[in-house]
Amino acid sequence: MSSFPAGAGPVDNSRSPHSLWRTLPLRDVAITDGFWAERRRVNREVSLAHGYAQLEATHTLRNLRLAAGLESSAALESGAGPANGGFVGYWFADSDVYKWLEAAAWELANGDEPLLRTEVDATVALIAAAQQPDGYLDSYFQIAKPGERWTDIDHGHEIYCAGHLIQAAVAMQRALGEDALLAVALRLVDHLYATFGPTGRDETCGHPEIEMALVELYRTTRDPRHLELAQLFIDRRGRNRMRGHAGYGAVYQQDHVPLRAATEVAGHAVRQIYLTTGATDLVMETGEDALLAAMHTLWTDMTERKLYVTGGIGSRFDGEAFGNPYELPTDTCYCETCAAIASLMWNWRLLLLTGDGRYADLFERTLYNGVLASPGLEGRSYLYVNPLLVRGGRYVRASTDTGDGAAMARPAWHSCACCPPNVMRLFSSLQHYLATASPAGVQIHQYAGAALHAALPAGPVALTMQTDYPWQGAIRLRVDAAPGSAWQLALRVPAWAPEAALTINGEPVAAQVAAGYLHIERAWQAGDVVELTLALAPRWLRPHPRVDAVRGSLALLRGPLVYCFEAQDQAAGVNLLDVQVDPAAPIGEAPGAAPDAGIALELAGFAAPEGAEGELYSFAAPGQAVITPAPAAVQLTAIPYYAWGNRGISSMRVWVPVAPTS
Amino acid sequence: MSSFPAGAGPVDNSRSPHSLWRTLPLRDVAITDGFWAERRRVNREVSLAHGYAQLEATHTLRNLRLAAGLESSAALESGAGPANGGFVGYWFADSDVYKWLEAAAWELANGDEPLLRTEVDATVALIAAAQQPDGYLDSYFQIAKPGERWTDIDHGHEIYCAGHLIQAAVAMQRALGEDALLAVALRLVDHLYATFGPTGRDETCGHPEIEMALVELYRTTRDPRHLELAQLFIDRRGRNRMRGHAGYGAVYQQDHVPLRAATEVAGHAVRQIYLTTGATDLVMETGEDALLAAMHTLWTDMTERKLYVTGGIGSRFDGEAFGNPYELPTDTCYCETCAAIASLMWNWRLLLLTGDGRYADLFERTLYNGVLASPGLEGRSYLYVNPLLVRGGRYVRASTDTGDGAAMARPAWHSCACCPPNVMRLFSSLQHYLATASPAGVQIHQYAGAALHAALPAGPVALTMQTDYPWQGAIRLRVDAAPGSAWQLALRVPAWAPEAALTINGEPVAAQVAAGYLHIERAWQAGDVVELTLALAPRWLRPHPRVDAVRGSLALLRGPLVYCFEAQDQAAGVNLLDVQVDPAAPIGEAPGAAPDAGIALELAGFAAPEGAEGELYSFAAPGQAVITPAPAAVQLTAIPYYAWGNRGISSMRVWVPVAPTS
Repeated sequence: MSSFPAGAGPVDNSRSPHSLWRTLPLRDVAITDGFWAERRRVNREVSLAHGYAQLEATHTLRNLRLAAGLESSAALESGAGPANGGFVGYWFADSDVYKWLEAAAWELANGDEPLLRTEVDATVALIAAAQQPDGYLDSYFQIAKPGERWTDIDHGHEIYCAGHLIQAAVAMQRALGEDALLAVALRLVDHLYATFGPTGRDETCGHPEIEMALVELYRTTRDPRHLELAQLFIDRRGRNRMRGHAGYGAVYQQDHVPLRAATEVAGHAVRQIYLTTGATDLVMETGEDALLAAMHTLWTDMTERKLYVTGGIGSRFDGEAFGNPYELPTDTCYCETCAAIASLMWNWRLLLLTGDGRYADLFERTLYNGVLASPGLEGRSYLYVNPLLVRGGRYVRASTDTGDGAAMARPAWHSCACCPPNVMRLFSSLQHYLATASPAGVQIHQYAGAALHAALPAGPVALTMQTDYPWQGAIRLRVDAAPGSAWQLALRVPAWAPEAALTINGEPVAAQVAAGYLHIERAWQAGDVVELTLALAPRWLRPHPRVDAVRGSLALLRGPLVYCFEAQDQAAGVNLLDVQVDPAAPIGEAPGAAPDAGIALELAGFAAPEGAEGELYSFAAPGQAVITPAPAAVQLTAIPYYAWGNRGISSMRVWVPVAPTS
Repeated sequence: MSSFPAGAGPVDNSRSPHSLWRTLPLRDVAITDGFWAERRRVNREVSLAHGYAQLEATHTLRNLRLAAGLESSAALESGAGPANGGFVGYWFADSDVYKWLEAAAWELANGDEPLLRTEVDATVALIAAAQQPDGYLDSYFQIAKPGERWTDIDHGHEIYCAGHLIQAAVAMQRALGEDALLAVALRLVDHLYATFGPTGRDETCGHPEIEMALVELYRTTRDPRHLELAQLFIDRRGRNRMRGHAGYGAVYQQDHVPLRAATEVAGHAVRQIYLTTGATDLVMETGEDALLAAMHTLWTDMTERKLYVTGGIGSRFDGEAFGNPYELPTDTCYCETCAAIASLMWNWRLLLLTGDGRYADLFERTLYNGVLASPGLEGRSYLYVNPLLVRGGRYVRASTDTGDGAAMARPAWHSCACCPPNVMRLFSSLQHYLATASPAGVQIHQYAGAALHAALPAGPVALTMQTDYPWQGAIRLRVDAAPGSAWQLALRVPAWAPEAALTINGEPVAAQVAAGYLHIERAWQAGDVVELTLALAPRWLRPHPRVDAVRGSLALLRGPLVYCFEAQDQAAGVNLLDVQVDPAAPIGEAPGAAPDAGIALELAGFAAPEGAEGELYSFAAPGQAVITPAPAAVQLTAIPYYAWGNRGISSMRVWVPVAPTS
């Protein structure tokens, strides 16, 4: 069906010269059971159909039909109107279709699904029909701004949309071996290369995204122009020419400073981390030290000064941006779902490049918390913004399209619908992120019920992973096939685990953790069983003293899961705005009160009596405690953060104040 | 010169049936010396000329010249361009001219100033020339959107601008007895009444402001249509028809609920409090209980849940809005200067209506801190946003027109220039807010070096007030003239004062404070001297435990002044991000280190060594303190918050973490 190779997942670094660890072909890993199997079942059976229906209901697919001439704007009901040629939605809405299509492609590789197959075929045909003869494709400019293509590179998102199209096309090729969409993408990329290539316009898109897409396209096509264009788009950024919008300045689009000279993650968080992700992809191909050094600098800035405990990033609604160092409010944090996904993508590439378990640890923290809190457990709703503190059922805004802070539920969709299909494509391809291989062996990064295959130089390896992770810390790996000669099995030991016990065929083995991994070299035999047991006891995390927003408070973790306290689980009369905890109190485990919430945590705490409001500021009497002890002993229940907001949105808090020492 | 009475200040409730206390004619109070005399000198000698120059430099006056046909848009340099008919700036920029003119009018009543007089005359003539024959006046719609007047009541700000014109016209009439601008305003109000009056369009402006202006106009003209129109504009709000902007919803414009049913201050803070101010003015005329009850409810919500310690209001950049209850971040607070001024205006009217000193206390807190921090001490720069915590010289944005958070100074002006002339008109008329009279006597609300006159039913009273307030707590009042019969002198005792000592002619007098005032009834004689001494010792304020943003921190006050710690005053090596204080440590006083900063406060504290950054989140070991004590004993210096940012903008904090009990 195609002249290009198929089989790889979202990142194919099998021929990248500067990678330590290589991704496995998509079908060489299967998530078979357990926690992620269930989340992926919901994504496959519910979310993808929901997404397609929403793309239709919001006119997003119709925009492409209008561009293709398959429908006339006159057919629109009044109101959607003749303005903008009938285009409805944000001007970059095509990208939602492409992200959904990418998700669907990965999902069809997981197993055929006739209805989804039909929707995919129709969507591919629609996109091809919408493309103009010279390769240009962007339904907004085609129908709303005819004649104005490439006139607003800073804000027009045409190149951004092209990036998402390329990713969908690469997914169709890799997942299904089908190159119809890839042909569309290649025509568009030819057009881009002619327009913005080395002899073209010296510009780059206001919203980074295409950089990683072009590197990935290069990995499939080996066409050096594709890598060259990615490099050009990265190198042209940082000349302080873009003007952001609404006064945000060039930093909004990371145009304030060349990437190699940047010392801080700044501006629009998704833009920033899509950019670093593409740059890290580029480093895997070029090995450029200066760019890699910048990645280290920016990662340190993000993780030491601008990261939420959930893995979320982006402190500000204003500009959807990173804040200043330590500006990490919990009530008005933005923590856009797409920004967390961008962080996953970036950390994955840094892991492939360096083999440092810190990246896999942050991937895990972000996956189970910052990302997983977005989709409703039922698979038909998504948070765009992910707060860590909600007072009294009210929240700033779930996205720009919700109202005035009144009590609300997780929205079914968003007028800016970037997040839902981003979650879908991640979940559909999640097996990609479990394990890698190198000439020396196999590395396991994320733990889930799975079957894994890897073609080592010595011969094929097959492994079965059994675990009830993240609820239980026991991970059992059975060797199903092995070449006979020695190779290394590397198992990640998360930094959150105070203890990790290892047995091989039932015998305890002492092994050293290096850079976050246990490396066990052995001439493995079929039937060998490795058991890793990570201690999952709940632990309290405390913030750096500069994080003013959560001073004097602690957050509860159990394994990779950040926990939160939600009003629905507390006793009558306990207001989460008034609780305090004693970090020395024992923490019990109980079946999850919320649906699909696994294990709940229970502990004794304190609360002020209801109605104890009073003065906002009062004079401190000499010797008076700054923090008043809450008098009433109460029982508190915590659930995993990802499960919050599935019973309506009420009070919720991740960080809990500590009771003054009694 | 005019058929209407002159002499009153901004609020003339001399004939309002539902006021307890009455404002004094503007010239009956003179601020003669001391703290406010100097701030007003700068405002008069520097700021007003700066404002006029900025109105010219930003093309704001030229917009009116274009509307008047006195200049042609063809005369504009390229760039300012023919777009919008040559209009430059925000579509509501006329209001900046009107506010400046109001300030200038009050200032000319304080004493003639030939240059200012010339500018005022030119501006009045310009406004009159710009008015259309049917009374309509709005330079934006006249030149940028001809034929579109009154097509965008929600966002067009035409009625808002009319409100500011009315206030300027009333000021010209009252301060100077000149009715040329009042004639313009009356023509515009006739046009408004015909368009939006009882038989006109059933709409109200998206930005409240005109309500208070119309009540004030009624107080001058006694034309019942003016009061009627104010009432209509208030009554028509709250039908959930406005759509805010950028998805904020009707709450942005307080259209989500009828004002009488509102239980929370919400949405755009300036809009909200301009609305309550106008409504309180209306209550002074109508005595309506339902509206007054709503005012009490909203004031309680604001002061118990949504108020900064500086008197600032508006927690969010996003929508320039009030936050949810207890959402009071210090780094990303908005605290727009205009919102603080709106709060002053509202509290003043509530005080006049009720005689409750809580309103005068909040007026004082807001004046000395939330408002006074806006203007630079030199009088040529203004903060729009007033943060309580700035880390490392970076701040979110001073307003929409500054850049990317880099180190900066107080801006000279703002593209949305509402705040600077708002400060100017307040300062120019500040004597209005010092004292009131009632049939029973004279009430002193704010303390300053001043000469006061009041015409009591019993006869004229003259008082001289001498004080070095707010630096010293001694206030000396000398009776210069008195009718001979008994009357009551009421002196405010702020709630922040732990002690207040009173003497009359040197003899201590025991007097009860009732609702925030000492009431001393006596047949005062010329030469009587009353001395009130308020204890000004520095005191620590602690926050309500629900104010997560400042948990475990204290704020330092001395008298009415909130203090802050600014990097420039600390010893080398002390980083304000890492300091802690001991509330039991003695606090010394020293001459202000910053210019015009009066008295600085000095205290021993603790700091972490520089460079002690490290992990953002770390596991708390059992028994480990949640907050790590800062090891180094250091000396800390605090200056009044109003003086911050006058030596460049570096780290600054109002709330300081408390050291763990040692």
